[in-house]
Amino acid sequence: MTYCVAIRLEAGLVFCSDSRTSAGVDDVSVYSKMHVFDTAPDRFMVLLSAGNLATTQAVTTRLERDLAGGQRNLNSIGHLDEIARYVGELSQYVQSDFSGQSEQASGLMEASFILGGQIQGQPHEAFMIYPQGNYIAASRAKPFLQIGETKYGKPILDRMISSEITLERAGRCAMLSMDASMRSNLSVGPPIELLLYQADRLAPVQRLLYDADNPYLKALSGAWAEGLNRLFADLPRFDWE
Amino acid sequence: MTYCVAIRLEAGLVFCSDSRTSAGVDDVSVYSKMHVFDTAPDRFMVLLSAGNLATTQAVTTRLERDLAGGQRNLNSIGHLDEIARYVGELSQYVQSDFSGQSEQASGLMEASFILGGQIQGQPHEAFMIYPQGNYIAASRAKPFLQIGETKYGKPILDRMISSEITLERAGRCAMLSMDASMRSNLSVGPPIELLLYQADRLAPVQRLLYDADNPYLKALSGAWAEGLNRLFADLPRFDWE
Repeated sequence: MTYCVAIRLEAGLVFCSDSRTSAGVDDVSVYSKMHVFDTAPDRFMVLLSAGNLATTQAVTTRLERDLAGGQRNLNSIGHLDEIARYVGELSQYVQSDFSGQSEQASGLMEASFILGGQIQGQPHEAFMIYPQGNYIAASRAKPFLQIGETKYGKPILDRMISSEITLERAGRCAMLSMDASMRSNLSVGPPIELLLYQADRLAPVQRLLYDADNPYLKALSGAWAEGLNRLFADLPRFDWE
Repeated sequence: MTYCVAIRLEAGLVFCSDSRTSAGVDDVSVYSKMHVFDTAPDRFMVLLSAGNLATTQAVTTRLERDLAGGQRNLNSIGHLDEIARYVGELSQYVQSDFSGQSEQASGLMEASFILGGQIQGQPHEAFMIYPQGNYIAASRAKPFLQIGETKYGKPILDRMISSEITLERAGRCAMLSMDASMRSNLSVGPPIELLLYQADRLAPVQRLLYDADNPYLKALSGAWAEGLNRLFADLPRFDWE
């Protein structure tokens, strides 16, 4: 399993992903699910991926190969939503290539993506690309997109995220959302990758890798846990208490 | 959808359930999912239900009817785990009765239950009964059981519940877990029912119904939201901030 989240703010974009893959409890590995492409200087792009690892790797490899010499690639396409479409088409192509006619196999091959970034002169955007290849954009009213094991980490995002907050605040919130997911689901695990992108910079402002022992990750998670305990202990009592 | 949680503590049992049922967004109703049976004075039993409403109603009705005149009923069975088995059998019977041979229909008829309570001279217990009729017990190491839309409300339980805490503390935690589920999933909704059972009392200590405007529910939810905001604002900063 996997958990990835992207947040579209007025200030820019935040991306956060875990690194655990599992094909059964006896086959657990560490793979990055955050891919930053070495695109032309007029654009910046991040792809987060969840689902079948063979599919996501094949899509990423194909994107890189096209970028190196294909007609249609991340540099040649003029709009981010068309790039989302292109990623969706590659994903569909890879899935159908390996699953043949079997409906069961095609379910197992599924993958989801979040594409975020900016092309010079256009707004920064983030898209979630479904296994079927179609996609939706993050908006002011729904600033965050999630893929993978999404539910455990959603309540904190629902509470804390609005599109006006700072990149750092959203970054901390993404990490707490990740923390909740890791606590409740063993198949989501460190290292955690976090990338902050400031609008119009066309390059990451911060790109960080937190392993389980990272001092900041421990301080953040510790302060949150301790604060929650204090807060919980001070809640209003029932009237008979 | 539905969300129900039961917590087995050293001190007793806590039950919490929402009341929203939906068969599509244009068919939303209010039904209680917490059923307290009028059993013999030597025992106390609560049933929480999730899943197909026709199935859960048929099971509850059948339990009541057996209690009024059946050979095998909630009063005649000597152990709570055998009562869990009896509920599971009724659930299986009802499901197969209506779904016929169709696999698709049988999925739609599925229901899950949580049975909790105590028979005099035996420990208090809680069981989760799967749609297949089998069941698991809550334990010291895993004191809470959930059915329905379980994931949004799990992180707070994972953090705060251990079997040594008081009924009231666990009750507040169950309500916060419910609050998180209601915020993240529209198909979970008020009124919220909460029942606290003190071990060996063989009757509820508190049974409460909170509608959306209930002052305590609002105070609890408000204090939690405000405290989270304060806590979030005070988290350790990234080193470049």
